[in-house]
Amino acid sequence: MSQALQMRPRLLAEGLGTALLLAIVIGSGIMAERLSGGNVAVALLANTLATVWGLYVLIEILAPISGAHFNPAVSLVMAARGELAARWVLPYIAAQLLGAVLGAWLANAMFELPLLQTSLKLRGGAGQWLAEAVATAGLLLVILRAPAGRASSLVAGYIGAAYWFTASTSFANPAAVFGRMFSDSFAGIAPASAAGFVIAQLLGAAAGLGLHQLLGRNK
Amino acid sequence: MSQALQMRPRLLAEGLGTALLLAIVIGSGIMAERLSGGNVAVALLANTLATVWGLYVLIEILAPISGAHFNPAVSLVMAARGELAARWVLPYIAAQLLGAVLGAWLANAMFELPLLQTSLKLRGGAGQWLAEAVATAGLLLVILRAPAGRASSLVAGYIGAAYWFTASTSFANPAAVFGRMFSDSFAGIAPASAAGFVIAQLLGAAAGLGLHQLLGRNK
Amino acid sequence: MSQALQMRPRLLAEGLGTALLLAIVIGSGIMAERLSGGNVAVALLANTLATVWGLYVLIEILAPISGAHFNPAVSLVMAARGELAARWVLPYIAAQLLGAVLGAWLANAMFELPLLQTSLKLRGGAGQWLAEAVATAGLLLVILRAPAGRASSLVAGYIGAAYWFTASTSFANPAAVFGRMFSDSFAGIAPASAAGFVIAQLLGAAAGLGLHQLLGRNK
Amino acid sequence: MSQALQMRPRLLAEGLGTALLLAIVIGSGIMAERLSGGNVAVALLANTLATVWGLYVLIEILAPISGAHFNPAVSLVMAARGELAARWVLPYIAAQLLGAVLGAWLANAMFELPLLQTSLKLRGGAGQWLAEAVATAGLLLVILRAPAGRASSLVAGYIGAAYWFTASTSFANPAAVFGRMFSDSFAGIAPASAAGFVIAQLLGAAAGLGLHQLLGRNK
Repeated sequence: MSQALQMRPRLLAEGLGTALLLAIVIGSGIMAERLSGGNVAVALLANTLATVWGLYVLIEILAPISGAHFNPAVSLVMAARGELAARWVLPYIAAQLLGAVLGAWLANAMFELPLLQTSLKLRGGAGQWLAEAVATAGLLLVILRAPAGRASSLVAGYIGAAYWFTASTSFANPAAVFGRMFSDSFAGIAPASAAGFVIAQLLGAAAGLGLHQLLGRNK
Repeated sequence: MSQALQMRPRLLAEGLGTALLLAIVIGSGIMAERLSGGNVAVALLANTLATVWGLYVLIEILAPISGAHFNPAVSLVMAARGELAARWVLPYIAAQLLGAVLGAWLANAMFELPLLQTSLKLRGGAGQWLAEAVATAGLLLVILRAPAGRASSLVAGYIGAAYWFTASTSFANPAAVFGRMFSDSFAGIAPASAAGFVIAQLLGAAAGLGLHQLLGRNK
Repeated sequence: MSQALQMRPRLLAEGLGTALLLAIVIGSGIMAERLSGGNVAVALLANTLATVWGLYVLIEILAPISGAHFNPAVSLVMAARGELAARWVLPYIAAQLLGAVLGAWLANAMFELPLLQTSLKLRGGAGQWLAEAVATAGLLLVILRAPAGRASSLVAGYIGAAYWFTASTSFANPAAVFGRMFSDSFAGIAPASAAGFVIAQLLGAAAGLGLHQLLGRNK
Repeated sequence: MSQALQMRPRLLAEGLGTALLLAIVIGSGIMAERLSGGNVAVALLANTLATVWGLYVLIEILAPISGAHFNPAVSLVMAARGELAARWVLPYIAAQLLGAVLGAWLANAMFELPLLQTSLKLRGGAGQWLAEAVATAGLLLVILRAPAGRASSLVAGYIGAAYWFTASTSFANPAAVFGRMFSDSFAGIAPASAAGFVIAQLLGAAAGLGLHQLLGRNK
């Protein structure tokens, strides 16, 4: 029971952070699509800025509680490195997936869209899968090598670049894939496309960990 | 009298900061609307960037004097937590509301619009009220959990994200609602819509305080 | 002679900094106007971002040498406060004005425009003069109250906001007015409009100093 | 052999960093061009933001290993100043050039373009060569004068400004010229235009070093 109490704030932080992250990604996508009059580049610019600012803030305020993973691929790598105890892995991932759905629903509710919906946007193909692997490898490299106190601005800046330089607009997060399935809007992804993205992300995460080890310690 | 003298710089800081914040929000909205040729997404992008930069600067230079609330919902929560003495609450809110109107008039004057005007833009409905509650809850969470010295960039970044991910473009501030009533432009809000927004904001502020307490102390 | 040697790096820093600032403001205005296809809001967005980044960099690298004024209004206020020795005032302003013209010419040369040209863009009227006074008052307030080590990001952020919230796009600098006269492009100003802008800026600088004193010392 | 082992992480960092830099510059250019519907200013804005964020991140995470040059002009200047041992110069430049090509190919692969291609975009003329010299002089000045720990944000911000204020969109890097030859897209440069750009960059780098010495030590 005392252990359950100790777990509560960490899982609340992972769930709340992932929920707000998805609400930011999906909500700003809906707003941007509505206002941009078909100019997709302007819509993605707004979507990018909201995500960059939002990630920076969420990591800053929640990292001291849970580490601010918001991402099963990150939690798995942290567990593989012994930085997250094995007993935390499943609860973390459960909190992230639950938060992701709740965040999608919150965005749907704020924009007065049907609460329950599924994206019809198919995403995939060799280019996009390669892009997801690259995006996630880079994300892990950034997280594992960030100097103390800079993870928030580095992860946010990295995702801002990756929204544009990867052909898939960089989901780089299985929980983001899961949540985005529940909104048929700018940021959505059809359930049929989810498995390909997640497999690419997990392979990319492993590659990022490998690159990190090849680079060795900082001088 | 010595107490009145002591109060002057703090109330001046709250009034000046809120006035400049409203001049920035309303003025950049007017400029953006004039230049964007009907592209609302581009206009909101410019409005967002000006607000993010402006908030960062105003909090940095005025927080050492007054705490840089610029927002009655923030002052009320700070009073509830004992971080603002009860005798300061009404003077703070009065300075914020007075500053908000003066800021709106300053924007009107710079852009050579009639000084005295009232917005005709109706805002409301369940989605927008939910959005204002979410926006204000998030703002309080960010303020209450910001690491020392980071409140300026975190609040600015949060509002930048919230302009896009909340369906209401995130007023999140009863003084902002009050000031924006006095400009019939991009950032305006009709007086008839004010009460709904303010009630949602106060409920959201209470929810933000509750979430903060649920998350507990940082590790 | 030893004094002249001592003066050289400081005046070089003021001249070089003002030249690069003007090359950035004018050059990015030319590029933005050429690429934006008549979308003035997008052009001003690009012009704003280039100026914000450029100012941040120039202040960071040159402030340790000369204080990085790049602005006669700033040098005059610093002299009035005793932070710049009186004998430096005229050399500083001369270096700033010379740098401003060279910067305009550098922009003209890079974009293969006639080197010698004069802007035909008339700017003025009560609203724009009020805007210049407000912009300069705010700039001085930011400079005088910036916490140690934050002047670069605060001045850059402030100008970013002021490009949009003041009706004049915030010149806020007599040397900028001078240099911009020499480029008939997006950022230009007709010589006939210069005096009005400069007078408004100097009045605004005095108002900013007054506001700073009213606010008193930080707690 | 032990020396070869010691060299591996540094060369890997230079090669990986340059590859990712080119993938970011070229990839975000392709994405921006595809989404912007012919609005070149919006495309360059997106390309700029991705580059600024990407550079910031790459310098932060790789500078502790190799110094994060990613640029033969920087390595040559560092060698001239004795900050990079002469025996490192050729390996560094080889790693940068190899990385640049791999980065271009990675972008081509992610966007499902033919892997092997050459840019047809001619760039040059007196204005653009002057612009490249100015851009590279400024880059070296920023690198040589950056306060400790600020090189990442200063270099990123400088390049962001230089994308807009120089008429050439600021390549400022012979390895970037090399890599961009291998992608016939927004950020590309025809091989016939490469020599002019590189010569201008090397002259600019020397000018930047000279300016740095003229400015002397910080006070």
